[in-house]
Amino acid sequence: MLSIWLEKQTLSMRDLPTPARSGEALIRVRLAGICGTDLEMVRGYYPFTGVPGHEFVGEVVEAPDQGWVGKRVVGEINAVCGKCEQCRKGVGTHCERRTVLGISRRDGVHAEYTCLPMANLHVVPETVPDEAAVFTEPLAAALEIQEQVHIQPTDRVLLVGAGRLGQLIAQTLKLTGCDLHVLARHPHQKKLLEARQIKLISEAEIEPRRWDVVVEATGSQEGFETGRKALKPRGRLVLKSTYRGEMSVNWSPFVVDEITIVGSRCGPFEPALRLLASGEVDPTVLIARRFALERGLEAYEEAGKTGMLKVLLG
Amino acid sequence: MLSIWLEKQTLSMRDLPTPARSGEALIRVRLAGICGTDLEMVRGYYPFTGVPGHEFVGEVVEAPDQGWVGKRVVGEINAVCGKCEQCRKGVGTHCERRTVLGISRRDGVHAEYTCLPMANLHVVPETVPDEAAVFTEPLAAALEIQEQVHIQPTDRVLLVGAGRLGQLIAQTLKLTGCDLHVLARHPHQKKLLEARQIKLISEAEIEPRRWDVVVEATGSQEGFETGRKALKPRGRLVLKSTYRGEMSVNWSPFVVDEITIVGSRCGPFEPALRLLASGEVDPTVLIARRFALERGLEAYEEAGKTGMLKVLLG
Repeated sequence: MLSIWLEKQTLSMRDLPTPARSGEALIRVRLAGICGTDLEMVRGYYPFTGVPGHEFVGEVVEAPDQGWVGKRVVGEINAVCGKCEQCRKGVGTHCERRTVLGISRRDGVHAEYTCLPMANLHVVPETVPDEAAVFTEPLAAALEIQEQVHIQPTDRVLLVGAGRLGQLIAQTLKLTGCDLHVLARHPHQKKLLEARQIKLISEAEIEPRRWDVVVEATGSQEGFETGRKALKPRGRLVLKSTYRGEMSVNWSPFVVDEITIVGSRCGPFEPALRLLASGEVDPTVLIARRFALERGLEAYEEAGKTGMLKVLLG
Repeated sequence: MLSIWLEKQTLSMRDLPTPARSGEALIRVRLAGICGTDLEMVRGYYPFTGVPGHEFVGEVVEAPDQGWVGKRVVGEINAVCGKCEQCRKGVGTHCERRTVLGISRRDGVHAEYTCLPMANLHVVPETVPDEAAVFTEPLAAALEIQEQVHIQPTDRVLLVGAGRLGQLIAQTLKLTGCDLHVLARHPHQKKLLEARQIKLISEAEIEPRRWDVVVEATGSQEGFETGRKALKPRGRLVLKSTYRGEMSVNWSPFVVDEITIVGSRCGPFEPALRLLASGEVDPTVLIARRFALERGLEAYEEAGKTGMLKVLLG
């Protein structure tokens, strides 16, 4: 099968054997997305070797349970052991023995076919087109914020960053009724937010110590600092990006102001599919370019450009 | 009145006028404690000028409400405006216009007399001796952990640090029934914990990624690192000390493991007094030395020695 291959921070096109994992579904990838993590892997952030990619919608072509064959599905990216303490607690996303689709010890979806355990699959409602379903995984990650932190309708919420994930976070936070403002950098990011009546704010307009919740989605020290200064005492800072390397932090204000910092990663697929089916979230506005898999290397190059929104493969 | 005075990081004994603040109680200090924050102020951590000290038990000698005169009291250290957003929310400890006893814009208790608003006072139950009541403020700070974080009886909890505050935290955490282990440095700290059947652990014995809650009470980068590595995915890290200067932190593990970090400061007085009255917490074992106020400078010197437990004045 045709596939993108990552090795030693270098991408190439390969012809690989169709994957097979016993007890798992074989899925034909209909459409896949390139995400920030994929780009970070190419830059050497994670030492992954294999087929990259974890955002997809596909069709089951083989499965232990024949009833699944032909179903259009999306898939959770953590393949878990089911036996460790985290799994027994129902927190499979933190399984200590997990493999992660296109990220850790498991080939991903930037290929014609991919494999996943049956437990990871979710059927996509018929009314949700591939172009929306391919965003299920990042939309679930956006919803993880509300899985972890109680956003009250009266909260003043500041979102720092309006890239690919930031846009989905903005759309989901807006649905809580909270007083949301977004600090966006690029004109096209702002335009997308304005089109959904989401309020913008400039760095200069952010009042210090006046925000109940800050979501940091830039992964930069500047974004972190902006968020920290904006928080009220007892405020909550959600870290929604991974950070490269170390960052210097003055902890005393966090203790004196009793700030809570919450790291946030993968989220729940079912509510993401419900919001896509109802149309309350529309991720398709984020699509910037679409490339056939054959042009995968070009697609990665495009996706890596500053401020680029979503590039799709397939 | 006789008083200790702090100015430009230098302590001196002074003869000051008896304080008076309209609408507030005048309190004769019966017994006061020297705490880590007092010592940090002398070292220049806070730029405070005035009478230091905020841990005390005293007797009301003048008050707007005569019914309070003669009462033995302890006092919350944040004097608040009652009007700002934090005050209206009931979070007076974070009042934006607060003065703080012996810490910020308000003379403290290392003197013969001190003043506090009536709303800050709590009557000490008769059965609680001065030597226990003087610990109400730090005991309340220890209880703030449980005010902010739900410690479940099944949780594995690691306390890093067993100094003055750490000992009180250990005593209160033990009451939750959780599986508590304490990393203590000094032999006399260990002896106190062992006397209360609190389990000790060495750095080498701390299993990485196996603890539900870590309370960091050392204020050092080493303590922070030890705590971070010990935490399970989705674990909670409580920061119970202020930190001098900046600290370098790698944030990615916090995001990937969805760790929650909670800064924790002043706590509730009433439950602290209940635990003192019931004898379920016994802070008097922490008393190392007691000095008359006249020997205040000597007392501070003693309190500043490495590993020293509580030094009292009065």
